[in-house]
Amino acid sequence: MNFMRREQKVAKLLIHNKKTLSLAESCTGGLLADRLTDISGSSKFFKLGIIAYSNKAKNKILKVPQKDLIKFGAVSSQVARKMAKGVRRILLTDFGLGITGIAGPLGSAKNKTIGLVYIAIDTSKNNLCFKYVFKGPRRQIKKKAADQALKLLEEILLKL
Amino acid sequence: MNFMRREQKVAKLLIHNKKTLSLAESCTGGLLADRLTDISGSSKFFKLGIIAYSNKAKNKILKVPQKDLIKFGAVSSQVARKMAKGVRRILLTDFGLGITGIAGPLGSAKNKTIGLVYIAIDTSKNNLCFKYVFKGPRRQIKKKAADQALKLLEEILLKL
Repeated sequence: MNFMRREQKVAKLLIHNKKTLSLAESCTGGLLADRLTDISGSSKFFKLGIIAYSNKAKNKILKVPQKDLIKFGAVSSQVARKMAKGVRRILLTDFGLGITGIAGPLGSAKNKTIGLVYIAIDTSKNNLCFKYVFKGPRRQIKKKAADQALKLLEEILLKL
Repeated sequence: MNFMRREQKVAKLLIHNKKTLSLAESCTGGLLADRLTDISGSSKFFKLGIIAYSNKAKNKILKVPQKDLIKFGAVSSQVARKMAKGVRRILLTDFGLGITGIAGPLGSAKNKTIGLVYIAIDTSKNNLCFKYVFKGPRRQIKKKAADQALKLLEEILLKL
């Protein structure tokens, strides 16, 4: 069987390149960490996950500035970038990944629709952020966001 | 349809009793947080999840003493209790839940078998810990541990 799940590919690339990863999840609520830790041996590369569901958690643990949370809102590229940076710095892993979005069906706000998701990846050299709008019910939006995060990680790791 | 998933029952009880929850997961790797955050409105009670996959994370963020990690090992009742207490204290939620175990297939050690799981629940008044040995492949052990954690929470919440 040639089929390899995306988390397996990412795990293989991280282990092969001896790179470590920390995650800061908001709207995916732990799904991304759950998928990665389904891989036996994931403790080699996965060091820490923070599910920062409240703004207080984003500020206190991930060091997202209070003023960014107020000015741009929790679902914004600015906050996603700071989440990725904040979580990477806690244990100084090679990669930090931050996801923030609105999984719905509640929680839409002005200019922010259900399914809006920002995914940021931080390294010692770069801080990238991507914006998506996913469709579907809550579980589907979580799944699509986690899948997209793995896709991004895979693309970056393939360039190493 | 009368069927209600266990996470829905727990969510309902937490919201009804106006109680908040933080999670410190090790062997379940975010699965418990993922299940709870599948519930729309979970941000009302779920404040923070820490997936402390490394000892460094357990020590640095959850404040599990280094000496406990060395003396009793990461998979021990002592560490589970400190994880629950540590995570509860970060945002001062009503409940803190800690899970540590060996999901396998790697990672068994002397006197510690694959499937061994400790689940601790901390409140301002109590710190309880329960020991289990679950059977099955990695994903099954994660699922059984997350399910058992929800069962314990439900039992405690029903007594409020």
